[in-house]
Amino acid sequence: MEQEVGGSRPPSCTKKMNKEKKFKPSKELPAGFIDRQEKELLTRDFIIFNIKEIMIKYGFQYLETPSFEYTDSIGKFLPDKERPDQGVFSFKDEKNWLSLRYDLTAPLARYVAKNYQEIPKPFKRYQLGTVWRNEKPGPGRFREFLQFDADFIGTKNLQADAELCILISEILEKCSLSKDDYTVKISSRKFTEELFKEIKIDSIEQTSIILRALDKIDRLGWEEVKKILGKGRKDSSGDFTKGAELNEKQIEFIGKKINDKSSKTKDILEIIKIFDAYGFKNYIFDPSVIRGLEYYTGPIFEVNLNFEVKNLKGKIIQFGSIGGGGRYDNLVSNFGNLDCPATGISIGIDRLVYALMQKKDFNIKPSKPIVVCCFNKENIKEYVNILKKLRSKGISAEIYPGEGNLKKQMQYANKINSPAVILYGDDEIKSGKATLRNLKTGEEKSIEVQNLSNEIKKLF
Amino acid sequence: MEQEVGGSRPPSCTKKMNKEKKFKPSKELPAGFIDRQEKELLTRDFIIFNIKEIMIKYGFQYLETPSFEYTDSIGKFLPDKERPDQGVFSFKDEKNWLSLRYDLTAPLARYVAKNYQEIPKPFKRYQLGTVWRNEKPGPGRFREFLQFDADFIGTKNLQADAELCILISEILEKCSLSKDDYTVKISSRKFTEELFKEIKIDSIEQTSIILRALDKIDRLGWEEVKKILGKGRKDSSGDFTKGAELNEKQIEFIGKKINDKSSKTKDILEIIKIFDAYGFKNYIFDPSVIRGLEYYTGPIFEVNLNFEVKNLKGKIIQFGSIGGGGRYDNLVSNFGNLDCPATGISIGIDRLVYALMQKKDFNIKPSKPIVVCCFNKENIKEYVNILKKLRSKGISAEIYPGEGNLKKQMQYANKINSPAVILYGDDEIKSGKATLRNLKTGEEKSIEVQNLSNEIKKLF
Repeated sequence: MEQEVGGSRPPSCTKKMNKEKKFKPSKELPAGFIDRQEKELLTRDFIIFNIKEIMIKYGFQYLETPSFEYTDSIGKFLPDKERPDQGVFSFKDEKNWLSLRYDLTAPLARYVAKNYQEIPKPFKRYQLGTVWRNEKPGPGRFREFLQFDADFIGTKNLQADAELCILISEILEKCSLSKDDYTVKISSRKFTEELFKEIKIDSIEQTSIILRALDKIDRLGWEEVKKILGKGRKDSSGDFTKGAELNEKQIEFIGKKINDKSSKTKDILEIIKIFDAYGFKNYIFDPSVIRGLEYYTGPIFEVNLNFEVKNLKGKIIQFGSIGGGGRYDNLVSNFGNLDCPATGISIGIDRLVYALMQKKDFNIKPSKPIVVCCFNKENIKEYVNILKKLRSKGISAEIYPGEGNLKKQMQYANKINSPAVILYGDDEIKSGKATLRNLKTGEEKSIEVQNLSNEIKKLF
Repeated sequence: MEQEVGGSRPPSCTKKMNKEKKFKPSKELPAGFIDRQEKELLTRDFIIFNIKEIMIKYGFQYLETPSFEYTDSIGKFLPDKERPDQGVFSFKDEKNWLSLRYDLTAPLARYVAKNYQEIPKPFKRYQLGTVWRNEKPGPGRFREFLQFDADFIGTKNLQADAELCILISEILEKCSLSKDDYTVKISSRKFTEELFKEIKIDSIEQTSIILRALDKIDRLGWEEVKKILGKGRKDSSGDFTKGAELNEKQIEFIGKKINDKSSKTKDILEIIKIFDAYGFKNYIFDPSVIRGLEYYTGPIFEVNLNFEVKNLKGKIIQFGSIGGGGRYDNLVSNFGNLDCPATGISIGIDRLVYALMQKKDFNIKPSKPIVVCCFNKENIKEYVNILKKLRSKGISAEIYPGEGNLKKQMQYANKINSPAVILYGDDEIKSGKATLRNLKTGEEKSIEVQNLSNEIKKLF
């Protein structure tokens, strides 16, 4: 699929080279980027429509920060610290380093710091937007994806954390998932904090290696994660991940603790109480939920799908989470002495689209136009007359937009999966009756131009 | 507004510096990027909703290419060739140069080349997406904007060009503009081709300087453009634009021609015939329409707004076009020997949003939540009961999400422009009647919890 194009020529040379050497540009996309087709986009629109409706109902404000920020402003909170330069797309303009946002949380913190005097407190906002990660390309690893975020800024009230889990559930159910199709998992960084105390670890470097490692249990399995907790791990490509240098006893203790669902921290107990008040039951407490990002300080959430999802090769895969989040009470204060506790949740929209399209009962069908065939350009007024009648009734329709003969026109109509073509030749124009050919059945009917739209509506 | 942050430190140093020197990141945005608020976003959603509905009706396919392409694949067709490196945002990954798309046409050409065997011919697609220009920042000059594009690929049929103008009009009228509010201007590159022949100019460099210069008449005025057609022009910042080195006679001849609306080229005459068949009248032929991009080969279009628009300082400005496009029969063939004539049109969505929000009759109001006040956390079940009743009727509502006392809660409700608060203290809970306080009038009513939603609906 991939192809080396351009080598290390800077972009400015491109045009010139095209002309001088008849250089043929690549038709391929860089790894990690894809073209998206109609069905996927309509599914995405359906999800976004539901999200917006629910966010209004829950009283969140709609906000959009730009894709670029000063690199310094959004810091760098990505888990893959092993490759610090490659995590984000950064760019130097005349004076400064700019980066494409890698999430919607860091830009929100910048926005809150900038507008601290003006925003209500608490401040509830949602955002939908593309984020970029300059990750090592690999199968199924994208470098741009669409994310939805909802956050409460300026409150320690755990009702906020609870409502985030509840609204995510409402979004998923509005998108046609049943209660069995998904689970909200909750845990807390307080839990790992206590854990680190118990095994006597307080180095920031060690704890962050441990958190990132534990976050990978789903993907790598416990045996591989154990290697990262210890001396380190070499992956299949030969890349080495530095270990946390824990001893066997410490590793064993961690393994036991993250499987013990009985020892809930205080914040979790309070959230569960709020869930009860809402009658919300579709959650589990799971201390093995870690979340990779460093900035979390309290409750953390993860949303998993429970139905079967196949990868692009048709193999059933462990799909993993489609969203999550948590409390990050110190992020905004990076910008100055702002005491600004906060909590938020994200959905990976592209992942949800991918999974939803595989659900049995879910089916979004793009509507395809009726094709009015063109026999003679001189008769365009007659074709337009039909076209306008159909479109005015909300029927997708077009006059054949190319230059081919009738055979080519029929091939075109079949190619685009048109439900029917309209034949309106000289004889038909004289009679005022057009021929409607159903392209599924091949059946033809002679119909008064006035009645075409009614007849066509029967096809759907 | 702007602030130098980070100087030329590469992004990887940032985090470390934060820790070591307590470096405080900037709260500002880089020039050319902005945060967008609710009212603007809702207006944008309204436009996008209308666009999608019309595109389905016209039988266009929904497609999305990614934001990054190989730099070589999308070439560089921006008008500002004087600053070739700065026109786009480019990044070098492990092997290749990638660029953020600067328009949606070049990526479409790449897509068509890549999928040439599979796509229907003609191929009609639309796309909505952000594009980026690394322009010299300045007031009102953005470096990222949302664009809508519709294109016909693989047809020379001028009905396609005509329909693009018609669909743009339908979109604008669906977005509440009247026929007086906008004009579609048409011209053709055939016209300038003939012009160049008449003044005996055939150097590609000269013709492209001339086209770019003529495209700036609206912004700079004819006297300034004359300088670029001659020896060159120094702008107010001192930057020099190289001239086309035409003599006075040639310049005078151009000036006369682009104001002569009688001499229509053949393609324009045919398009006008199709407009007649559609009954479309809201256009003018205007040979001073040039369009800056180099790749146009035939008819070109521009859509202008006719109503008053103020800039951010409240001054009425010449708003200029909100969209345009044209025929580009040779772009796809850059990728190989594909004979693929094409024509397309764009709308600058952010610009349309900006103008539409200033129209007198246009008013989109964000809905704000009813705030259920919290007297006592132990009563959360009672508050949730009310909350669920309201939300189930589609009413935007929330339980006060912070931790403040009643006074703070009222301040919060006023700050977010909530239409009303619900007071449900111990006594009220006992009586089963909540107090609804209208925040506009200050009026209070005691209402059965069952009837709250009906009473609230009367407020809107």
